[in-house]
Formats: sequence, C-alpha cells, structure tokens
Amino acid sequence: MKLIDGKATAAEIKREIAQEVAQIKAAGGKTPHLAAVLVGHDGGSETYVANKVRACEEVGFKSTLIRYEEDVTEKELLACVERLNKDADIDGFIVQLPLPGHISEEKITEAIDYRKDVDGFHPVNVGRMSLGMPCFLSATPAGIIELLRRYNIETKGKHCVVLGRSNIVGKPVSMLMMRKGYPGDCTVTVCHSRTQNIKEICLQADIIIAALGVPEFLRGDMVKEGAVVIDVGTTRVPSDQTKSGFKLTGDVAFNEVAPKCSWITPVPGGVGPMTIVSLLRNTLLAGKKMIYA
Amino acid sequence: MKLIDGKATAAEIKREIAQEVAQIKAAGGKTPHLAAVLVGHDGGSETYVANKVRACEEVGFKSTLIRYEEDVTEKELLACVERLNKDADIDGFIVQLPLPGHISEEKITEAIDYRKDVDGFHPVNVGRMSLGMPCFLSATPAGIIELLRRYNIETKGKHCVVLGRSNIVGKPVSMLMMRKGYPGDCTVTVCHSRTQNIKEICLQADIIIAALGVPEFLRGDMVKEGAVVIDVGTTRVPSDQTKSGFKLTGDVAFNEVAPKCSWITPVPGGVGPMTIVSLLRNTLLAGKKMIYA
Repeated sequence: MKLIDGKATAAEIKREIAQEVAQIKAAGGKTPHLAAVLVGHDGGSETYVANKVRACEEVGFKSTLIRYEEDVTEKELLACVERLNKDADIDGFIVQLPLPGHISEEKITEAIDYRKDVDGFHPVNVGRMSLGMPCFLSATPAGIIELLRRYNIETKGKHCVVLGRSNIVGKPVSMLMMRKGYPGDCTVTVCHSRTQNIKEICLQADIIIAALGVPEFLRGDMVKEGAVVIDVGTTRVPSDQTKSGFKLTGDVAFNEVAPKCSWITPVPGGVGPMTIVSLLRNTLLAGKKMIYA
Repeated sequence: MKLIDGKATAAEIKREIAQEVAQIKAAGGKTPHLAAVLVGHDGGSETYVANKVRACEEVGFKSTLIRYEEDVTEKELLACVERLNKDADIDGFIVQLPLPGHISEEKITEAIDYRKDVDGFHPVNVGRMSLGMPCFLSATPAGIIELLRRYNIETKGKHCVVLGRSNIVGKPVSMLMMRKGYPGDCTVTVCHSRTQNIKEICLQADIIIAALGVPEFLRGDMVKEGAVVIDVGTTRVPSDQTKSGFKLTGDVAFNEVAPKCSWITPVPGGVGPMTIVSLLRNTLLAGKKMIYA
C-alpha cells in the first residue's frame, strides 16, 4: 500500500503557482486577484474562507474578503455579485456556500459571471466540463484528477466506481473519469443511496472514489486487492481525542481498506488540501485569461 | 418480450401537443415558432430537417427553414444565429449538425441564445441538466426518458448500463438515469470503446441503453433474462432489400436479444421517432416561456 499524499502535492503545486505569479509580477503583469464573499459566521465556512485567503497570500495573489451578516438580503448579495462581475481588478470570486435559507444559492451562483466563476459551479462551466470544453473545473473533482495525474495512476480501461451523485463531486468526477484522455477513459459506475448491491459493485472496482459523506462507509470487505481508493469524505465526527472536540472522518474505514490498496488517500491530508489548490489554479487561469478571453 | 413502440408513443405525444397548440391559438395566444437552419445538401441532414419541419406543421407550429450552401462562411452563419436570437417571433431554433469543416460547431452552438436552444446543446442547458435545474433537454436523452415514463418501466435502484459516452446521448442519458426521482435513481455504468469487460458488465444490467453507433453490437449472450433494452443506434447499413439501398440498423442484434428482454425498442420505430417529439416539446415550452422567462 502506498499513500497518496495530498498535503505534499498541494504544497508542491502551491510552490509552482507562487513561482509563476512571481514571474508574472516581475514581467509587469497583473497580480491575480481572488475575492471571497462570506455570509454569516458558520464555523466551517469561516475556516474554509480563512484558508482560501491565506492560500492566496502564500502564492502572491491579491485577495479581498467581503463579509455580510446572516440577515443580508438576496438583493444586497446579488448587487455585490454584480459589483464583483464588473470590477476589472477582480479576476475571480467565490460566494462561500451554504447561504442562509432566505437566499437562493442557485440564483446567486447563476448571477456570477461564468468567466469569474473560479468555483466552477455556474451552469456554463458545468456544461462545458461535461462537453469536454475549456472551463473552470470545480475544486474537488479537479483536485482528484490532479492527484491521479501527479501519481501517474493508470486509468485507461479501468473500472472506476464513484460513490455519491452530488453536483459538486459525484456527478462531475464521473464525467471526468469517463472522458477521453488521461486521466480518464475509465468505465464508470455511479452508486448512491438507491444502489442495491453496492458491495458487489465496489468489489469490481479498480478505482473507488468515495464521496457519500457517510463516515467509514467503505469497509475492507468491499474492496478488491490492488484497488486505488480516493476518499472524499470529510465528516466532522465528535471525538474526545482532539482539542476541537471533533475529528475529520472520511468515507473509508482506512485501517481495514488501506492494506488491500495499491494507492489510497488519507483523511485528512488527501483530497482536502487539493481543493484549495484547484481554486488557486482557476484564479491563476482567470488572471491569465486562459479559459475565457 | 414486449415491444416499446416509439412510433405510437411519438404519435400520441404529437396529438397531445397539437391539442395544446389548438387551445393556445383558440385563447389568442402566440403560435409556437421553430426555425431550422440547414447548411449544404447532406442526405441525412435534408431528411432530418424535412421531418422536423413536417412535424411542426402537424402539431400546428409555425416553422421557418433557412438554407445555406456548403460554402457559407462562419461569419455569415453567426450573423444568422444573431438574427434568430433577436427575432421575437422565433421561440426556438436549431442549426442542423454536422456543419462543414470550416465552421466551428462549438462556436455556432455557443452563439445560440440558450433560451432558444431547443436542441439542448448549449453549455447552459447541458450544465443545468447536469445540476437538475429546469432546461431544454436534448432530444434523444429526453426521448428515452419519456419512453421509460410512458411505459411505467421501473428504474429505482436498477442497474442501468449505458453503452457510449457521446455528448448527445451517452453522457446526458447517464446523468438523467442517475438523478433523483422517476425515471432515475438508477445505479449507472457508462461503457465505451476503452471498456475491457463489456460483456460481463452488460450481463449485470437491468436496463441497457445502447448508443455506440456499432450495428448489432449487443448480442444475445450479453443480456440477462428480463432486461430492458433501449436501442439508440441508427447506422445506415447497405442493403439490397430496400429501395433506398440501405437499412437503418440499431446497436442491438434484435433477433437474439429480444427473446430475453422484458421490454425492448425496435429500430426503426423505437427511440428515433421520439427525438423529433422532444424537439417539438422543447419548442412548445419555449413558446410558453416555461423554462426561461
């Protein structure tokens, strides 16, 4: 069993991006600029956004954090999106989800100019991804693909089983794994809560991407020898062993599954660190106008 | 074995649409208006477009056919798309594919206002479909889903194997079959030219959607007893038994496969007739501004 070290890979990519940003600046080019909009004070969202802003600073991006209280109206938030759409200095921006119940996440996401949608959630970017056109890939699927690429994991003709059909992981990663080229060319099976014989299906998989959000769902007896296992789960499970009182737990029962794997990602330190890097990469591409002119 | 009669179902839906159009007209509403753009004189394209125009007339739509010679420039075609985008009387329009090599199909498709993209090929509609949002579904996937619905074929928890990963059938139909609700909630496997053990995978399928474009690819020994088989193939195979000199041949070896099936679509008369009906339905929805305001 060999570990896919997302933390080290993410650090390596950050160094590459930092180097490129330094070159851009040295040549008198524009510093990539990411804005993040945060509504309310949800602990998870606060942490995610703080990490994103810190990562921007690490690689030399400019970053702007815009905060609203929980009671911001949908109209005010749409006006903010409109301002960011028009702000020529902002290359890309994100509105951290989830939003309070009185605001339509769909409406906000669609209002973002798709050319600045570095989260890759806008229908135009989702559609272009599905059609194999240049686009901003959403962070988690892009991070998974990049890990497979950096570790030279063979995918052509392999059977990839995706657990979960969410809009942000299951569906897009299944599209990416089935597309032509590398990483890709997999036979892809998507399983979910309605799947009846999930154990039998997992046992056929050469590659399993677990994104159900069910802690330790994938057990040792569900994985064949030599499989590659990518664990996307990050559920906060209460724990008396940590200071914070919880522990990030993946969808994979690591101790049971790891001994059977050729490659496996840990939680934490696997897919997680790659997602912020994907966002940085999209922002760099936006700054360079590599996807959209 | 029972036959899924696409021809009869399509005729039934056409009657429903015609009835609704008559009511709209009687109430003084706007007659739905579809425009079709045809470039060159490809035999297949001529037939498809002629059938679409005839179908429009049958249900009481207004239709407009715009023809260009093979040597039309991309710029001229883009100007035509722009005119149709702006023409308030045109509710929806299609540009018949394939286009000559000197014209980018991607550029033309993206230039179409997604609110008039009744073919459902624009990235916005593809993305919205993937995200489960209201959209124009592309014709063939929509036709398949409608056949399953009208025949009350159980899909929840079933294993659906899709053969083919094309942008117009394989990928979208796999997204529709895995989504929540009915028809949907299937475990979905997508196979293609790189798939290694396609026979074993097909033998696990409760539902097979064959869209490889390889005549009689699916043989009797690849299908389990009681399976539902949807044949999307329509390859023109030379034949001395028809006046035209060719015969439409599906991806399914019907004589071998049919005896094992609970339900099967024939070729012709299965999925084919449903595609035009999907286009009519989208045009009706466009006319009623049911998807986009």
